[in-house]
Amino acid sequence: MQYDKDKAIEILERTPKVLNELLRSISDKWTLNNEGENTWSPFDVVGHLIHGEKTDWVPRAKIILEYGAEKPFEPFDRFAQNEISKGQSMNELLSEFEKLRTENLKAFKSLSIRDNLDKKGKHPELGDVTLRNLLSSWVVHDLGHISQIARVMAKQYTEEVGIWTRYMGILK
Amino acid sequence: MQYDKDKAIEILERTPKVLNELLRSISDKWTLNNEGENTWSPFDVVGHLIHGEKTDWVPRAKIILEYGAEKPFEPFDRFAQNEISKGQSMNELLSEFEKLRTENLKAFKSLSIRDNLDKKGKHPELGDVTLRNLLSSWVVHDLGHISQIARVMAKQYTEEVGIWTRYMGILK
Repeated sequence: MQYDKDKAIEILERTPKVLNELLRSISDKWTLNNEGENTWSPFDVVGHLIHGEKTDWVPRAKIILEYGAEKPFEPFDRFAQNEISKGQSMNELLSEFEKLRTENLKAFKSLSIRDNLDKKGKHPELGDVTLRNLLSSWVVHDLGHISQIARVMAKQYTEEVGIWTRYMGILK
Repeated sequence: MQYDKDKAIEILERTPKVLNELLRSISDKWTLNNEGENTWSPFDVVGHLIHGEKTDWVPRAKIILEYGAEKPFEPFDRFAQNEISKGQSMNELLSEFEKLRTENLKAFKSLSIRDNLDKKGKHPELGDVTLRNLLSSWVVHDLGHISQIARVMAKQYTEEVGIWTRYMGILK
């Protein structure tokens, strides 16, 4: 598929609703466990998505549109969720994510991107990227973390599944 | 986590709602594409989940409770969705899945499983399994297919993401 703003928005506006249905008011056992040392729980992932809304996708798109590759993006902090999530409940994080995403989609819809998709920006680690790369990554990043959250939850039953593990690709 | 009926139901009753938010009325491009030859599109997966509701989880639980390992389960048809989905729209499949899941959860809630979790059943390929294995697999199977659907959708933008693929584990 080629990048298309309307089709991208179809995913971006669904993500907070999908996470709400999957995670709101569910038992902590499903959301606070992870996949082992140095891995993320669903709770961690939602904090990370909040940080992305604040610092990554729309702010970076605006940098490309205004400055092109002359102004590199700020590096993204992969551990910011530890601060963001401190003292918050999962339901509070879900509401915060939904609010930020709604605001960002409103801002995004007003940006002129059609003729700028191949405009270059500068990623602090990856180097030259395009607006198309950035905006597609926003969508893939959402779907990747939905997929991850479901996987992390599934793994909590690895022992209980017994020999059925053979048929459960998700547990491998 | 140990299997717990109430915590399992938390996931099982969410799955149709999660799939509704993710897939209802979205563009066909997101739901009819797959990951390549002999792989499933999100449309195929929902058909497969419908077949599971009809023939797999609750019917098999009832066989264990009534007959134990003396009556092997019917083999599961992994291609039944081709017939189930013929001529159906994604929205029709989502509604059908939700209806069947609601009925099955109603039946499941009435089953006495607490003292029977380690009761054995006979899987036609895997051999001896327990009710605990079967019921945990129902949950893991849901989460695995949610994870798969998000992954298949993400992969549609693999080309567009460009060098960002490096950071997108979901595309590998």
